[in-house]
Amino acid sequence: MNAIVISCGTELVTGQCVDTNSAWLSTRLTAVGVHVVGHVTVGDDAARLSAAIRRALDEAELVIITGGLGPTPDDLTREAIAEAIHEPLQENAEALSQIRGFFERWQRPMPESNRRQAMTPRGCEVIANSRGTAPGILYRKDHRRLYALPGVPAELKAMFDSALAPMLDELSGGSRIESARLPCFGISEARLGDVLADLMRPGRNPAVGTTASQAILSIRVLAHGSSQAEARRLLDNDVAEIRRRVGEPIFGEGEDTLEGVVGALLRARGETISVAESCTGGLLAKRLTDIPGSSDYFLQGYITYSNASKMDLLGVPQALLTEHGAVSEAVARAMAAGCRERAGTDYAIAITGIAGPTGGSPPSHPVGLVYIALAHSGGVEVVRHLLGEHLTRDEVRDRACKVALNMLRLQLVARSGGPP
Amino acid sequence: MNAIVISCGTELVTGQCVDTNSAWLSTRLTAVGVHVVGHVTVGDDAARLSAAIRRALDEAELVIITGGLGPTPDDLTREAIAEAIHEPLQENAEALSQIRGFFERWQRPMPESNRRQAMTPRGCEVIANSRGTAPGILYRKDHRRLYALPGVPAELKAMFDSALAPMLDELSGGSRIESARLPCFGISEARLGDVLADLMRPGRNPAVGTTASQAILSIRVLAHGSSQAEARRLLDNDVAEIRRRVGEPIFGEGEDTLEGVVGALLRARGETISVAESCTGGLLAKRLTDIPGSSDYFLQGYITYSNASKMDLLGVPQALLTEHGAVSEAVARAMAAGCRERAGTDYAIAITGIAGPTGGSPPSHPVGLVYIALAHSGGVEVVRHLLGEHLTRDEVRDRACKVALNMLRLQLVARSGGPP
Repeated sequence: MNAIVISCGTELVTGQCVDTNSAWLSTRLTAVGVHVVGHVTVGDDAARLSAAIRRALDEAELVIITGGLGPTPDDLTREAIAEAIHEPLQENAEALSQIRGFFERWQRPMPESNRRQAMTPRGCEVIANSRGTAPGILYRKDHRRLYALPGVPAELKAMFDSALAPMLDELSGGSRIESARLPCFGISEARLGDVLADLMRPGRNPAVGTTASQAILSIRVLAHGSSQAEARRLLDNDVAEIRRRVGEPIFGEGEDTLEGVVGALLRARGETISVAESCTGGLLAKRLTDIPGSSDYFLQGYITYSNASKMDLLGVPQALLTEHGAVSEAVARAMAAGCRERAGTDYAIAITGIAGPTGGSPPSHPVGLVYIALAHSGGVEVVRHLLGEHLTRDEVRDRACKVALNMLRLQLVARSGGPP
Repeated sequence: MNAIVISCGTELVTGQCVDTNSAWLSTRLTAVGVHVVGHVTVGDDAARLSAAIRRALDEAELVIITGGLGPTPDDLTREAIAEAIHEPLQENAEALSQIRGFFERWQRPMPESNRRQAMTPRGCEVIANSRGTAPGILYRKDHRRLYALPGVPAELKAMFDSALAPMLDELSGGSRIESARLPCFGISEARLGDVLADLMRPGRNPAVGTTASQAILSIRVLAHGSSQAEARRLLDNDVAEIRRRVGEPIFGEGEDTLEGVVGALLRARGETISVAESCTGGLLAKRLTDIPGSSDYFLQGYITYSNASKMDLLGVPQALLTEHGAVSEAVARAMAAGCRERAGTDYAIAITGIAGPTGGSPPSHPVGLVYIALAHSGGVEVVRHLLGEHLTRDEVRDRACKVALNMLRLQLVARSGGPP
């Protein structure tokens, strides 16, 4: 089944809002085997929206419109559908009763303007909205279906789950799809491509692909089966094979993050962490404490931006700073050791580097040069990375934190007896 | 001038990535008076992309494609343009030399696969890419223009600024649009609406509107004039009037951020700042050090997540923690005072609170309760905020940092003799 998603709103075509609904819908549609062939966005313009609807109904069996169902005059989806399917708008008694019911539950009087939301093209069905006033609309013609859903994400998602998901499950019938994502860090996309070449060949089932975003690579596996059990078996086989071939760079599954995985490992081991940050300026601590409950293992952090603070807070000897400079292996090592000792934690991470855009002095000290040190009971490991002068300040800081979290992850995995 | 933005990528139509490029481009196009009539997204499918290009060229004078210019076989924008405009693909010597140049600067060998990126449809122009290997493509036919730009946001933005922005400025010619954004913090949108009601009435020139995002309100002003000078004069009049009416909540203009404005004020005054963070876990320091050159005024920070670290690093008396709890006015005050003294800075900010989702104990200590203290030469100010139990952990931490930065801003502005 082919699908097209149409988003409606002037705030989208002027760029004031980013359209996240289309991606959300596409994820859900793709997961049940629907082939989303395109997204279309138009402003609050009934003629353009109507033309987009007609064209989409020609090209796809399933068309989903989001937005334009509100009570104000710039909400034109009802009119556009009516025009596209050549039916008049009529007040729908069921829709009106749903809208009245919403205001009764909310214990507020219904403004007259909300009555507009009960207008639907003749012959269309109404879909209940559990989270707001705008009823959805369903138009069926032969094997084609057009759904109009609200643009407010919470209302859209609730209505999709109640009205579309069961229909899609039914339509997908025997044939089932199961999918997985394996996030990786510390391996290049080219290397992944080599290792997984035979699994990634076009047309194979399961389909295996890789995508990269902010230095995190994702291996995505999509398995089709004649039953859910078959799809799951195919998926599990591939996931196991991929884990075997790629090994340690795979740090989790699904929506796992490096900070989440590191946090779970620390919690499981009952161990603690502290950080000492120079160029990342708090970002590493922020990431670690993004995780609810991180106070169980994250105790404290030092942001030592100045040389004086590296000496005062971490006990880095002045001689080291003078001899090697603040961005050096020796200083990273002393920062991590000082941090671990003073914070009294099992692990300590230190980062010092040149985030840019200024402050670099190539070739020895370009922007993107970072030293990352991990102190633990066995000593202090230090790595030097040239993250690349083409990266922005934000990117240098992001990458440095990811390298640091991954060093800690590998140490924790090794101490826990290797990957699960 | 009408424009259509086409985004290309299977990761978009399957929902694995949210398309932010279209919104970014639309903001820039709208700002110079281009009317964006639609966005279209298609997967890595040369036939569908080619059909979308043909249709867009029929409907709009300006068509911008993002994505599909990479070196791998699923990058099909070059082929789709060639098909849409009925011209063969040829290796473009200028494009090849740009790609070779990129690898030379990066000091890496050029993989053979990158040679594909030098293929362009006959008669098209090549656009230099300062941030990556993919050259852009420009096709002109009569008064219509088709631009193909890279999908990587940093490359897209750099190429837009270098190649499209000057052309758009030129094309917008006689009738001119000038726009401004005044970002505000610490005032409600309803209050802004009251204060600016007469300026915001529909149809007025300049158009004045407000939008809210992550607790930052933006007042946007868009002035049309028969000349750039007239548009600028209308804009400047409105901006001055709005500044007069709204006053201190306006913290800057354009893309100014609270951390950027605070940094500029500190730099201008030659003063320094340190921070002590509990629930924000490094986010405030991260924001302050997002600004290049912030090492001139940001010296150090303490992330005191545990009670022990509040005592050890900041000298908070154990008795205060026992009597009032870590999330209290007394502890926030002691954290800020201890931070300022130990760091030896002119100002120090301390934040302690309950970021959630767990850890709240309503009604006295709900999720979203934060105490923020600012220490300076005149003493320590503390504010208590109930940020709201409906906020996520990320939102509580974000809002707490913004309140803190705004407190510092108002203190710096007062010491500098009031708003400019």
